[in-house]
Amino acid sequence: VNYLRNCWYAAAWSAEVGSALLSRCLLDQPVVLWRDTGSGVHAIGGRCPHRFAPLGQGKLVNGRIQCPYHGLQFDAAGTCVVNPHGDGAIPREARVRAYPAAERHRLVWLWFGELGREDPALIPDLSFIDEPGTAAMSETVYGHGNYQLFSDNILDLGHAEFLHPGFGAPVFTKGKRETRLVGDSVQCTIFHPNDVQSPIVSQLLEITNKRVDYWGEITWTAPATLVFTSYYAEPGMPRDTARRLPSFHVFTPETDRTTHYFWAGTRDFRVDDAALTEQIQRATGAVFRDEDDRMIAAQQELMGTSDLFSLRPVILPGDSGAVLARRLLEKKIRIEAAASDASPR
Amino acid sequence: VNYLRNCWYAAAWSAEVGSALLSRCLLDQPVVLWRDTGSGVHAIGGRCPHRFAPLGQGKLVNGRIQCPYHGLQFDAAGTCVVNPHGDGAIPREARVRAYPAAERHRLVWLWFGELGREDPALIPDLSFIDEPGTAAMSETVYGHGNYQLFSDNILDLGHAEFLHPGFGAPVFTKGKRETRLVGDSVQCTIFHPNDVQSPIVSQLLEITNKRVDYWGEITWTAPATLVFTSYYAEPGMPRDTARRLPSFHVFTPETDRTTHYFWAGTRDFRVDDAALTEQIQRATGAVFRDEDDRMIAAQQELMGTSDLFSLRPVILPGDSGAVLARRLLEKKIRIEAAASDASPR
Amino acid sequence: VNYLRNCWYAAAWSAEVGSALLSRCLLDQPVVLWRDTGSGVHAIGGRCPHRFAPLGQGKLVNGRIQCPYHGLQFDAAGTCVVNPHGDGAIPREARVRAYPAAERHRLVWLWFGELGREDPALIPDLSFIDEPGTAAMSETVYGHGNYQLFSDNILDLGHAEFLHPGFGAPVFTKGKRETRLVGDSVQCTIFHPNDVQSPIVSQLLEITNKRVDYWGEITWTAPATLVFTSYYAEPGMPRDTARRLPSFHVFTPETDRTTHYFWAGTRDFRVDDAALTEQIQRATGAVFRDEDDRMIAAQQELMGTSDLFSLRPVILPGDSGAVLARRLLEKKIRIEAAASDASPR
Repeated sequence: VNYLRNCWYAAAWSAEVGSALLSRCLLDQPVVLWRDTGSGVHAIGGRCPHRFAPLGQGKLVNGRIQCPYHGLQFDAAGTCVVNPHGDGAIPREARVRAYPAAERHRLVWLWFGELGREDPALIPDLSFIDEPGTAAMSETVYGHGNYQLFSDNILDLGHAEFLHPGFGAPVFTKGKRETRLVGDSVQCTIFHPNDVQSPIVSQLLEITNKRVDYWGEITWTAPATLVFTSYYAEPGMPRDTARRLPSFHVFTPETDRTTHYFWAGTRDFRVDDAALTEQIQRATGAVFRDEDDRMIAAQQELMGTSDLFSLRPVILPGDSGAVLARRLLEKKIRIEAAASDASPR
Repeated sequence: VNYLRNCWYAAAWSAEVGSALLSRCLLDQPVVLWRDTGSGVHAIGGRCPHRFAPLGQGKLVNGRIQCPYHGLQFDAAGTCVVNPHGDGAIPREARVRAYPAAERHRLVWLWFGELGREDPALIPDLSFIDEPGTAAMSETVYGHGNYQLFSDNILDLGHAEFLHPGFGAPVFTKGKRETRLVGDSVQCTIFHPNDVQSPIVSQLLEITNKRVDYWGEITWTAPATLVFTSYYAEPGMPRDTARRLPSFHVFTPETDRTTHYFWAGTRDFRVDDAALTEQIQRATGAVFRDEDDRMIAAQQELMGTSDLFSLRPVILPGDSGAVLARRLLEKKIRIEAAASDASPR
Repeated sequence: VNYLRNCWYAAAWSAEVGSALLSRCLLDQPVVLWRDTGSGVHAIGGRCPHRFAPLGQGKLVNGRIQCPYHGLQFDAAGTCVVNPHGDGAIPREARVRAYPAAERHRLVWLWFGELGREDPALIPDLSFIDEPGTAAMSETVYGHGNYQLFSDNILDLGHAEFLHPGFGAPVFTKGKRETRLVGDSVQCTIFHPNDVQSPIVSQLLEITNKRVDYWGEITWTAPATLVFTSYYAEPGMPRDTARRLPSFHVFTPETDRTTHYFWAGTRDFRVDDAALTEQIQRATGAVFRDEDDRMIAAQQELMGTSDLFSLRPVILPGDSGAVLARRLLEKKIRIEAAASDASPR
């Protein structure tokens, strides 16, 4: 499988990474993450180069990972620094890959590409999650399909009316939609004036029986980071008077057919209402798990090991965002592969 | 996998197909079936051509299948007739295959071959099931092996004495057997005069402690329809005085290694005894499921992905029917493949 | 998969083989074993050559295996001697392979190689298990990895300190280690004077709070038989005054990725203490199952279908035995394959 390498991938929530080892498969590779009180989060390859034992089942000894099988110790640079056997000599090749790590927007991001190019400024801007005066919720969904199917799913919210009967509303089907390229990002917008929202959204926003003008804005950034923001304004009022509900959806491939789905959302009203936060999180998470993921799992099953385009899908206008994003990602991967030194592995 | 295409395959019992969508995998393809009050049973491809979602998880809206993902609607011809998005334009290629369907002998039959050649007269004659004054029983067994192994199993009933101790009797081992080609069908007959039947059959026929002359007749038709009729007569009396017990065994590949096994049988005595019908059906179904299917599953497991002949099986005289049927089917598939336009898919 | 053929493989404990058929997959092949009151243990191929039914699900009739599907009977030479159908003629090719069998050291050994070369003198010498005046324990562990990974595991006991915290002691990490070729065998020795044993071993040996001189000796013989003997002596005393704890570890591939792990050990003190025997057996078996096998399963998972050397493992001095054994086995298999007539299958 070809993945884009020179980019940051979300590996875990910051809160998931502590002083205990966290094993996770990312881009088909076993990785171990842990937090050092002094120097933050580290991530190294999870397969011991000696006998291929799972380093994530080892333990931390003096800030190093001790392999659970023969006790070799690896530091945060992935270098074996202790061989407890015999004279303790350490072969030069006794090392695993170290993944540059950065924490931002409540997530731990890892760099799978060329070393030296891991600029944290390349981490997608999800700063709405850090805004003071907002209430945030977040969760991981284990996704049973290729990560690009999950991107497609957000880029074409036209499915909402059919797949999410509790949430859906004709807005995504009937609204005016536009897709454009903004720098390296794909942006899909939707506008529907004088809209009636679903009971769930209405209750949340306390707009029952009231009409709203609705704007939706979805921004995709390679490889698979999506920000989706909804705006609700009094009919006829400008967008900057609207109530704003932003969310992000970050997809990291576990394997070619499974995905770590990190999502989060905030609101700037009733921010101290923890019960409301929990209620929204539960309802939203259920939609992603029981509706989106199940559909994508069925889709993946029916696609088998085939690539989407190889199956020649029918393209509808609503697919313009997804198709553009896929073409962009494909192109980036092709360029990267061509510059062979860009993929040091 | 190569399947014979220009023939009818049983897809379901008529009684299984109603106004709710029925999803079934047939010949490795997802298919959706449903019944229209006006025009009978329809069957179309079960994978939406837009995003490959499972149409069988959708719902019927005005007699059309609405895709559960983005709401495209497909009619019984497999053509997308409603696109609820934007201006509602429908790409020409938004269509799935429609399978000609016919109902006969309590089964729904689908045509997987060249359109225009779907003559219902090609449906195998199983009309004994429709005879008035008979009691019928029927059931589906989910088969864990290739459909041809199931045909082989019926074509060589020599296994009965060993695999079906409750039913079996030496008749199938000791009787006089013949195999002949009758048109395009393979017919295996067995004759055993002055035979003692198993306790179960004896009780059913009320012939305990009585000798009978026994005739068995098995007819195979491509791809995998078998009719098995037993005749029991007073010793020395002609066959047309015999009590007759006909059954059919229709095998439709779900995949290369799994089979939909439709069987049915009738009797023309004690026809109003529903308890007897249920008793026979339960006993017979148990034999097919717990004895035949388990054996075939084990056989398939030991054969792996190999074709039967490639493993060079020892051929016994009792295999003549199965070998002949396999050779015939192989030849038909080869001829069909050669006539490339015969396989429009 | 290439296995060494001209050698004996342990198939079962003698006590496992009785008058009932025992089905077992060995070297990827289905095999059926049974015991004849007159002539001992027999083993023949477990797949009927007629329809590939599992002979092990059949039954013994007059000392022959009757196939559960069509009733063909095979004798201990693997020859079909009864065809219950029609005129009973038996095709010449109606035969399965017979595996020469020998019982020694409580195990049943089968020969998978060229017939006529099955010299029982080639069975590895595990005679310590037969010594009078000793208490023995033995068990089978179902191993979830390639058999060579299990050999490696015993050949490098340097893992004990890390993988077996209850048993382990620094002796295997700190002791003086040597590897040598003794004839066709690989011998690894370890010596650690003035050693402190783990609480479990100390309690067993009744040497709590006492120092010992420790010798460990591991001998590997192709394909995968290992004898591991520990010696515990008063510090400074010669080895022949030591208490001796021998064990064997015999690994037979079930498939390329699963292993039948037969182990046994004896002691020559407190030999009548059955409770002690059970206690040691339980503790030891738990270590092999819950620690060794789990680690090897994880290792195999991370190696996937790759051969160990193809992954270019880092080699440590402690791997010298395992590497030597692997190279020897590889060479033997290569030589055998070159002499094509050595592999009659």
